[in-house]
Amino acid sequence: MANRSAVLHAVNDLRIEERPIPAAGTGQVLVRVAAVGVCGSDVHYFEHGRIGSHLMRSPMILGHESAGHVVDVGEGVDPARIGQLVALEPGVPDRTCSECLAGRYNLCPNVVFLATPPVDGSMSQFVAFDASFAHVAPEGITAEQAAMAEPVSVAVWANRRGQVGPGDRVLVTGAGPIGNFVAQVARSFGASSVTISDLNPYRLAVARSMGFDARLPGEIEGEFDVAIECSGAAPVVLSSMRSLARAGRMVLVGMGADTAPIDVPVLQARELTVLGVFRYANCYPIALGLISSRKVDVLGVITHRFGLAESVRAMTLAHDEPESLKVVVEPQS
Amino acid sequence: MANRSAVLHAVNDLRIEERPIPAAGTGQVLVRVAAVGVCGSDVHYFEHGRIGSHLMRSPMILGHESAGHVVDVGEGVDPARIGQLVALEPGVPDRTCSECLAGRYNLCPNVVFLATPPVDGSMSQFVAFDASFAHVAPEGITAEQAAMAEPVSVAVWANRRGQVGPGDRVLVTGAGPIGNFVAQVARSFGASSVTISDLNPYRLAVARSMGFDARLPGEIEGEFDVAIECSGAAPVVLSSMRSLARAGRMVLVGMGADTAPIDVPVLQARELTVLGVFRYANCYPIALGLISSRKVDVLGVITHRFGLAESVRAMTLAHDEPESLKVVVEPQS
Amino acid sequence: MANRSAVLHAVNDLRIEERPIPAAGTGQVLVRVAAVGVCGSDVHYFEHGRIGSHLMRSPMILGHESAGHVVDVGEGVDPARIGQLVALEPGVPDRTCSECLAGRYNLCPNVVFLATPPVDGSMSQFVAFDASFAHVAPEGITAEQAAMAEPVSVAVWANRRGQVGPGDRVLVTGAGPIGNFVAQVARSFGASSVTISDLNPYRLAVARSMGFDARLPGEIEGEFDVAIECSGAAPVVLSSMRSLARAGRMVLVGMGADTAPIDVPVLQARELTVLGVFRYANCYPIALGLISSRKVDVLGVITHRFGLAESVRAMTLAHDEPESLKVVVEPQS
Amino acid sequence: MANRSAVLHAVNDLRIEERPIPAAGTGQVLVRVAAVGVCGSDVHYFEHGRIGSHLMRSPMILGHESAGHVVDVGEGVDPARIGQLVALEPGVPDRTCSECLAGRYNLCPNVVFLATPPVDGSMSQFVAFDASFAHVAPEGITAEQAAMAEPVSVAVWANRRGQVGPGDRVLVTGAGPIGNFVAQVARSFGASSVTISDLNPYRLAVARSMGFDARLPGEIEGEFDVAIECSGAAPVVLSSMRSLARAGRMVLVGMGADTAPIDVPVLQARELTVLGVFRYANCYPIALGLISSRKVDVLGVITHRFGLAESVRAMTLAHDEPESLKVVVEPQS
Repeated sequence: MANRSAVLHAVNDLRIEERPIPAAGTGQVLVRVAAVGVCGSDVHYFEHGRIGSHLMRSPMILGHESAGHVVDVGEGVDPARIGQLVALEPGVPDRTCSECLAGRYNLCPNVVFLATPPVDGSMSQFVAFDASFAHVAPEGITAEQAAMAEPVSVAVWANRRGQVGPGDRVLVTGAGPIGNFVAQVARSFGASSVTISDLNPYRLAVARSMGFDARLPGEIEGEFDVAIECSGAAPVVLSSMRSLARAGRMVLVGMGADTAPIDVPVLQARELTVLGVFRYANCYPIALGLISSRKVDVLGVITHRFGLAESVRAMTLAHDEPESLKVVVEPQS
Repeated sequence: MANRSAVLHAVNDLRIEERPIPAAGTGQVLVRVAAVGVCGSDVHYFEHGRIGSHLMRSPMILGHESAGHVVDVGEGVDPARIGQLVALEPGVPDRTCSECLAGRYNLCPNVVFLATPPVDGSMSQFVAFDASFAHVAPEGITAEQAAMAEPVSVAVWANRRGQVGPGDRVLVTGAGPIGNFVAQVARSFGASSVTISDLNPYRLAVARSMGFDARLPGEIEGEFDVAIECSGAAPVVLSSMRSLARAGRMVLVGMGADTAPIDVPVLQARELTVLGVFRYANCYPIALGLISSRKVDVLGVITHRFGLAESVRAMTLAHDEPESLKVVVEPQS
Repeated sequence: MANRSAVLHAVNDLRIEERPIPAAGTGQVLVRVAAVGVCGSDVHYFEHGRIGSHLMRSPMILGHESAGHVVDVGEGVDPARIGQLVALEPGVPDRTCSECLAGRYNLCPNVVFLATPPVDGSMSQFVAFDASFAHVAPEGITAEQAAMAEPVSVAVWANRRGQVGPGDRVLVTGAGPIGNFVAQVARSFGASSVTISDLNPYRLAVARSMGFDARLPGEIEGEFDVAIECSGAAPVVLSSMRSLARAGRMVLVGMGADTAPIDVPVLQARELTVLGVFRYANCYPIALGLISSRKVDVLGVITHRFGLAESVRAMTLAHDEPESLKVVVEPQS
Repeated sequence: MANRSAVLHAVNDLRIEERPIPAAGTGQVLVRVAAVGVCGSDVHYFEHGRIGSHLMRSPMILGHESAGHVVDVGEGVDPARIGQLVALEPGVPDRTCSECLAGRYNLCPNVVFLATPPVDGSMSQFVAFDASFAHVAPEGITAEQAAMAEPVSVAVWANRRGQVGPGDRVLVTGAGPIGNFVAQVARSFGASSVTISDLNPYRLAVARSMGFDARLPGEIEGEFDVAIECSGAAPVVLSSMRSLARAGRMVLVGMGADTAPIDVPVLQARELTVLGVFRYANCYPIALGLISSRKVDVLGVITHRFGLAESVRAMTLAHDEPESLKVVVEPQS
C-alpha cells in the first residue's frame, strides 16, 4: 500500500512521491491524514529552501497543520483510539529539559517539529505520530476544521502572552490567516474591541464580514491596550507600539524582520511590554474547543482546497492569488 | 526666615536664592530638607535646560531625591508627625484617574513631580509636601540614607518589572548609582548571580567590592535570565537581549536613546519579554526597608557631599570626576 | 423642592421621607437618581438592622446600586457633565492609604460606601456623589441597565479573582441575581462551560433560558476548574471544592457563614486556591461595557420594578416571592 | 554484592534486608546512596502503615530525601555522569499528562514517588533512578547537604505559592525541619520579617539562633502578609488567617487535619487567599543553589545521624527526643 507524500527536493521542486507507510512505534498512533493546512513556512521552504538557520539539506515532506483518523496504534497506546479523528500538534518536545518541566515545552531545545529540517512533515497519506500530541477532536467537527487547530493555537498563544481579556482594545496588524484567527480569538477572550489592518482589500473584507473593524494601515485611529503584530513588517512594530495606551502590550507574531526599531521613550513613559512568541504550549485543547463551539470560524478562513497532486499549486497560490486566505491540501483526494 | 534654594535659571546658570518658606497646605507637611541626591536628570536640566519634551520655561528649583524633618503640618495632618524624619516620594499623582485607581500611579498623566518643569524641586532648605508621600524613615537611618530611597525605588521597580527572583541570573548594564542599586536590589530579591558591566574602572571596582561580578562590556560571558539596562546606550539593548536565556526578560531603565533596534528572531525564538519602566509605584516602603536592613548599602554609593552653596560643583562633578557615584547636597550646611 | 428618600429607621421600619436636596460639593456631581437595584444587603439591614459588625445606630437611607442623570456639578467638575447618564460606583475610597495606592481600593479601610452605616445610600430622588466614581454610561443603555453595573461588577471581580478564562469549566453555586451575573460574566470571559446550581426552580429556569447548564445542587456532575460560591451556605464550600480539578480555584462571594470547613487533604493534593472577594476594584467600566454590548443580559434578571412609595414591598418581595430575581426601585416614579 | 535496605514490613516492623543491586535501566543512573533524610511521612508509615488512602499492602523500602554518587548509567545516559554527586528528586512524573505539559508535574496523576506504596524508597545502599531527576549537586556540598534539597524544595514551593517577596511579613507556624526551612527560604526570598512559632522550646531556640523571631503560639503579635502553616494542626489555620493583613496569603503545608474551619467574613473582608501545596515542581535547582550559597543552612537543622542498621532508632527518635530536628540515615555506614 502506498503513502503518497508531497516531498520538497529543492527550491520550487516539490514532487509527489510514494513513501512507505510507517509503523506506529511505541507510544505512537498511525494516522490517515485527511487535511493539511498550508502555512507560510511551507511556502517559505518551497521558495527559499530555508527559514533562517533552518536549512534543508535533503528532501523533506512539507506540512504541519494536520488532522486525520487513527488507523493503528503502537505499543502502550490504547487500541480504542483507532477510529478517532485527531489533530496533530506538530512539535513533540523531549519532556525532560528544564523548559519542558517548567511548562514551556514550546521552548524545548530538542523539540521535533514536523516539516522543520531534517524532520519530515505530514503532507502525506499516512503519518506515525506521538499519541499524546494527537489530540482527539471534539464531536461534530471535520478533519479540515481540526487541522486548523494549529494556526488557531498560534492565535491562542499570542493572545495569552498579550494577556488579552475583557475590556481590552486590541489591534491586530495583518489580516492573513494568522491575523484573522488572532482577531477571532481576541474576541473570544473578551476583548472589548478588535481592529485589524492590512493592505489587501479581500482580506479586510473577510475580516469586516466577521464583524471586525478592518482598516488600511494608515487609517488606524485611537489607542489600544494590546497590539498583536502578524504582518512581519519591521516598521509596523514602531507604529503599533506608538498606538498603545499606558501599560500596553505588544506581541510579535509575524516573522520576517531581522531587527526592528522600538521607541524607547514611549516604551518607558507608558511602561509598555514587548513580547516575543514562539509557536504555543498547552493550546490545542482550547483551540479545538473554540473551533467546536464556533467561537472561532475556521471555515470562513479556508478559501482553497487541493488534492495532494495539486500541492505545487497550493504552494504558489498564496502569492499568485490575492483573494485567498488559508489553503488546505487533502492527501486522500 | 530664609529658604535658600538652588534655582536653575538657564543652561549652566544655577543660583542660590532666597525663597519664602512655604506654608504646609491642607494634607501637607513642611519639611526642613537635610539631604538631596543629585540625579542624572538634575544634571541634564543644568546642561540642556530640558529633558525630551519637558522644557524649562522659567527658573526652577532642582532636586527630587530628598529627605528631612517635619517641622510643621497643614490641616488634616496629625501634629504628631512633627519631628519625623521623612523621605519624600517626589511624584504625587492625582489619585483619581484610571491609572491611579489601577495601582499604576507612576503612569498618572497628571502627576506632579519635583523638579520637572514647571514644578519646583526640593533642593531647598524647606519644602511643603503631600503628607502621605512623605514616608517615615525607619529608626536608625540618617536623612542622607533616607534620601536614597528615591534611586533605590527605581531599582526596586526595575527588579519587580523584570520579576527578578530566586534562581535568576541577572545582568546589569551600567554601574552608575542606578545600576549599582539595581544590582544590590537584585541580590536582595534572591537572584542567584548578578553580573554588572561598565567602562568606568572606578565604578566597576566599587561594584566588585560589594561582591558583584563586575566586568567590561566586552567581557560578559554566559547567559542571563534578566537583563536590566541602566546605561542608556541603544546598542546595549541588542547585545543584552542576545545574552538572555529562553523566557528571559529585558528591562529598559537607562534613558537617552530615541529608538533602539531589537533582534526579532531572538525575541521570538526565546520568547523574550522587553519591559519599559517609568519611575516606580509602591516602592518607597520597600526601599526604606532595604536601606534600613543594610540589604542595600547606600553609603557605599555616596561619594561626594556638598553644601547648598556648592550646588554648581555638585552638578558638574559627575562629568568631571570619573571616580564618583552619587553626589548629595545638604541644604542646611 | 423635595428629595424623597427611603429611610430605614429600625428593623422593618422603612419610611419615605423628604430630605433636603444636597448641593454638589467640590469634586462632586448632583445626580437625579432614576433606578436603584435592591441588594441582599439592603434586605438584610431591613430585616436585621445590621450586617455583621456594621450596626445601624441612626436612620439610614438604603440603596447602593444606582444610576441617574447629572443635574449639577460642584467646584472642579466640568459643567459639560450635566445631562450625562451615570452609574454610581458606591464605595469611594480615601485614595491615600497603601491599599488604594496598590490598586486595591476595595480594601481601603476608610472607604465611604453607600448604605453602610452611618453613610446614607442612594434610594433617593437626588444624591451628591464623587464625580470620578460617577461613571458615564455608554450610549444606548438605560438608567436601569446602568444601575446593574454594581452587581455585574461584583461578578466581574469574582471572575477576575478566580482567573476565569478560555478553557475553564466553571461552577456557580446559587442562581440569584449575583450568581446569574457571575455565570454570564464567566461566559463572556471565555469559559468553555458554565454550570449553575440552585434549589429555586424559577431561578434555574431563568439560567437555563440563558443557555446555562442549570441544575439542582445534588445533580452536579463532572469536575470544574473554578467554583464561584454565591449561595452563602457554608456546606457548599466543602462540596464545591471537592468538585474542583487539580489547580482549581474556589471563589467565595456569598456571605452568611461565619466559618466554613475546608477539606485540607483535597486542597493540598490538588493544589487548590480558595479566594475571598470583597466588592470590586476597577470593574465599573468593564461591567458597563458588558451590559452595553449585551454580553451580559441585565434585563433578563430584573423581574420587578417599584416606585419609591413601594420600597417596603421591594424589600419584602425577595423573601415572599420565589419567582423573583433583581428588584429595582425607581425614585422618580 | 549486597544492597542493604531498610524495609518496612508492617507497623513498627522495620528490617534491614539485602536486596539485589538494581541495574540502571534506559534513561537511568545507578546511585550509591550516601544520605537519606527521615521525613515525617516515613515515620507515619512506620507507625501507621498508611498515609490517608496510601496503604502499604506489601513490604516497602522507606526514604525519599536522598543523595549519593552515580556509579553506573543505563542506555541513553552520558557515562560522564559516573562519579557525580546527585540529589534525587523523588517524584518522577509521566511527562505526558496535561498537568505535566502545563508545568505542574507535581500534580501528575501517574507520578512515581519514592516510598509511596507500592513504590520502594531510597533507604538502600543502591538505587536506580531517572537520570533527569538525579540533579547534579553544586561543587562543595556534601551528600548530606544535597539530600536536604528535598525538604528545602518543599519550602521553596511553599514560598512560591505564597508569593513571598521583598516587603512581606511572614509567619511560619511550626518550627520542625519543614517550618525551619520555610522560614530560611522566606528570608532568602527577601521577606522583610519572619516570625516562627512552635511549642517545642528546643526548636524555637534553633530558629532564634538563626535570627528568626521565634515565639510560642500564644505570643504572636502583629499582622502578616503571608502565613505558612507547617504544624498540621487544624485550629492554627483559623488563628493564622485572622492574623493576616489585607490581601494576605495563607499556605497550607502541614498535613494531618481532615477538615479545618476557615473564617469566611475575614477571608472576604480582607480578600485573603488560601493555597494548598503538594510537594514541589521545578524547585530542586533553586534548593540546591540556596544550600550551596549558604542562604539556607541545612547543617544547623540536622541533629542526628545513624547508620542503616540503626534505622529503627532513626524512626522513633523524632517522637522520643524533643531536642531533635532532622535525622539522617547513612546507608553506607
